[in-house]
Amino acid sequence: MATANASTHSKNARMKEVKKKTRLGMTFKKDASFGEWYSEVVVKSELIEYYDISGCYNLRPQTMAIWETMWEFFDAEIKKMKIKNAYFPMFITEDVLQKEKDHVEGFAPEVAWVTKSGQNDLEVPIAIRPTSETVMYPYFAKWIRCHQDLPLKLNQWCSVVRWEFSHPTPFIRCREFLWQEGHTAFATKEEADNEVLEILELYRRIYEEYLAIPVVKGRKSEFEKFAGGLYTTSVEAFIPNTGRGIQGATSHCLGQNFAKMFEIDFDDEKGEKALVWQNSWAYSIRTIGVMVMVHGDDKGLVIPPKVAAVQIIIIPVPYNDADMEAIFAACSSAVQTLQAAGFRAEHDFGKKNPGAKYNNWEMKGVPLRIEIGQDEIDGNQVRIVRRDNGSKVNVPTENMVEHVRDSLSNIHESLFTAAKVKRDACKKVVYTWEEFMTALNEKKLILAPWCDEEEVEKDVRTRTKGELGAAKTLCTPFDQPSLPEGTLCFASGKPAKMWTYWGRSY
Amino acid sequence: MATANASTHSKNARMKEVKKKTRLGMTFKKDASFGEWYSEVVVKSELIEYYDISGCYNLRPQTMAIWETMWEFFDAEIKKMKIKNAYFPMFITEDVLQKEKDHVEGFAPEVAWVTKSGQNDLEVPIAIRPTSETVMYPYFAKWIRCHQDLPLKLNQWCSVVRWEFSHPTPFIRCREFLWQEGHTAFATKEEADNEVLEILELYRRIYEEYLAIPVVKGRKSEFEKFAGGLYTTSVEAFIPNTGRGIQGATSHCLGQNFAKMFEIDFDDEKGEKALVWQNSWAYSIRTIGVMVMVHGDDKGLVIPPKVAAVQIIIIPVPYNDADMEAIFAACSSAVQTLQAAGFRAEHDFGKKNPGAKYNNWEMKGVPLRIEIGQDEIDGNQVRIVRRDNGSKVNVPTENMVEHVRDSLSNIHESLFTAAKVKRDACKKVVYTWEEFMTALNEKKLILAPWCDEEEVEKDVRTRTKGELGAAKTLCTPFDQPSLPEGTLCFASGKPAKMWTYWGRSY
Repeated sequence: MATANASTHSKNARMKEVKKKTRLGMTFKKDASFGEWYSEVVVKSELIEYYDISGCYNLRPQTMAIWETMWEFFDAEIKKMKIKNAYFPMFITEDVLQKEKDHVEGFAPEVAWVTKSGQNDLEVPIAIRPTSETVMYPYFAKWIRCHQDLPLKLNQWCSVVRWEFSHPTPFIRCREFLWQEGHTAFATKEEADNEVLEILELYRRIYEEYLAIPVVKGRKSEFEKFAGGLYTTSVEAFIPNTGRGIQGATSHCLGQNFAKMFEIDFDDEKGEKALVWQNSWAYSIRTIGVMVMVHGDDKGLVIPPKVAAVQIIIIPVPYNDADMEAIFAACSSAVQTLQAAGFRAEHDFGKKNPGAKYNNWEMKGVPLRIEIGQDEIDGNQVRIVRRDNGSKVNVPTENMVEHVRDSLSNIHESLFTAAKVKRDACKKVVYTWEEFMTALNEKKLILAPWCDEEEVEKDVRTRTKGELGAAKTLCTPFDQPSLPEGTLCFASGKPAKMWTYWGRSY
Repeated sequence: MATANASTHSKNARMKEVKKKTRLGMTFKKDASFGEWYSEVVVKSELIEYYDISGCYNLRPQTMAIWETMWEFFDAEIKKMKIKNAYFPMFITEDVLQKEKDHVEGFAPEVAWVTKSGQNDLEVPIAIRPTSETVMYPYFAKWIRCHQDLPLKLNQWCSVVRWEFSHPTPFIRCREFLWQEGHTAFATKEEADNEVLEILELYRRIYEEYLAIPVVKGRKSEFEKFAGGLYTTSVEAFIPNTGRGIQGATSHCLGQNFAKMFEIDFDDEKGEKALVWQNSWAYSIRTIGVMVMVHGDDKGLVIPPKVAAVQIIIIPVPYNDADMEAIFAACSSAVQTLQAAGFRAEHDFGKKNPGAKYNNWEMKGVPLRIEIGQDEIDGNQVRIVRRDNGSKVNVPTENMVEHVRDSLSNIHESLFTAAKVKRDACKKVVYTWEEFMTALNEKKLILAPWCDEEEVEKDVRTRTKGELGAAKTLCTPFDQPSLPEGTLCFASGKPAKMWTYWGRSY
């Protein structure tokens, strides 16, 4: 049975909890206790606050700033592709939800149902969207009549609800989460195929260019594809600490399946009836969870510069005999100079001592810290400290902007490279079942020759079931190593058709 | 009992409906049958599509473009005020929802309840937010401990659900609607009071500077204020066709009421415990409904230039012997020139004849139309037609940008002035009950001296009950005419304390 943990909010209990939560610094180590570390870091860095309904989280301004930066990028890019924003209702009637059989089977167990308003029972229960294919497509059928109505390309920014699961994790598995969902219809399969990849490239750019996380582009297996779709492509990331793959974002070609069910047809140029080809694609706040897992360290969050709400924090460093007025003035002036140069800079004039401030902003993952004390005033310089590697340099004030620009760009590259090196160290090519099981137990990202048969994948899942979860296909990468003729499937011994990534996953 | 109208979506029924809906041009006249006109214009202008759950609407790109323009303005303004975006869950547990008694009484009848996930009953039913005071404030209590944590200023962009009512109207009364809701906490009442008015000024600017709609700023009566709050301010618009006031947006001071219930206290500068002062404020897609009602006409929508997704539509006008290549090229060039000058311009190269295109873009409310045919090519000019008043001028191509800039600005002014003249013509100052009833029957916006007693307002509601709904206070305008000593309340005969707007309302 699903549960909702309602807390009582007595002042005492709350204050105790607060005290516990606000203990300075991180308690858990990333490598030693990853799960606890993750739960701690997302709260202490003020990304989220746990909510009194399990699987729901308060997304704090730190999170929203990251989300909005990605949003601005993606929204502008899809507008260039003439995709327009719309907003469809969050509610779905039962009969529409059930129109596409495979689709509803995929989502039914996790659908939340509204059955009452005020004191009254509704005549029929109403579902909250787990995704909006069935919300939108009856209207696609209405709006599309002839080839001139195509393509129809819509996107919406909203939250969706998927209620049922056992281990909610902030950002990664939430009962309500923010995402965008694009839904498009074309006259031809070719146009749909092209768009699938165009969107996937935007998702790659979000991960690699904004979040500094390397991803693999590829195609999901038949077993793992979107319920009701034709094929699914994805960008896949990997978490070395847990040895799990994580689906970063998906771009689906739905084929003509939904078109058939929802009667989305049009008069083509010859005046004949034809079904449309459809895509749907989405990325969610899961992106931010992956960012935390990949870059965070024992001091807390590490936010890549492009998405950081605060890129540079400027901290005055008082000494007994320091000219505090000059120090504060220099800090304010540095903030102004950096802001004028287009950076997101702030100062921290709070009452804590500098050390406590350093810890706090490191915990929050701010990429650069600038310290200004008497020495800096005297030397007409600033001290710049990097969050990612802790390196410290004194820079003449007149070179500050240039140095900051280079550092931020360098931090992005360093984070990406470090993440790629760590991920690549986990890659393991296997040819046999024995090698596969060894690699799986070593938490590797496994690349194996595969026969591409659904039954074989199911069999692998059955044979690898256990406490940590079964092994799954992650994706068949577009970038395929050569596959010499005669190579056999690691699992079935049949001729292999492709190289496919396998592993445990989120 | 609440109902959900689930349609069957048979292809035949759907096609019939489509045919009916796509009949060219408007069927209803604004003055003759306002309600039908409104329902028709919001659909035919492609702002919305009716959804198969009553009170829910598909918001189409035309709507979202308007919404996003207002969003960009408002979001940038509140960020200047150091208000940060957050996102809290859409779900609320019953015990938290019920924490503030007046508040829950105000919202309980219209709360939608989730009671099932998949096939399973939830242990306790969970509400969908009708507004987020009770969602957020337990966390305000957690995050605020000392005066340095203040002010706490958050905003979220989301949808909320208010299920129960009899006459849903697109944009105006929806079961799910988009809005922003700001929630702030301060150490002092003075700071809270100031912010209430700062935000109200932004709401005025949205209506007057973006939507070209005159509004009155004022304070709501005790009876009409926000459930659980201290006082409510609002911007009030008026719809001459129905003689109804409409609350445009509200900025509430919550006082210390919620702070008490949710134990939101802090150590002040003297180290003593104090309760915070709170505000909440919101505007919604109702703004767009008011825009449709105020500016629309018998040809369809009229969109004020600042919020129009397309500000200028450029239409080629073919004749038998015209040089169509030159005409298309001139249209494309005009689009480029206008876009480069910062305008949102498009051409319509579709297959319809020019007349049908004119009607279509007039229906959609595009502020300016540019026609280019052989005459224009020959004369090196363009023909510019205004949506609001139909005026047509030929303008030398080299002056096009300048003329467009002036016209758009002039259209905004004209729309605002026309709306103000119409509204002001409905204003009626009354002193006695008899004058009041006459004015009410004439659908006036009534300004009356009032004793400001809640019992008297209730009494007025009782005495004016009827088919069209009772008369209510709209607001007590900040801009008060002089009130000579000895002026009596129009309803109670007691000494009047203020001038207050009364009328029927949405």
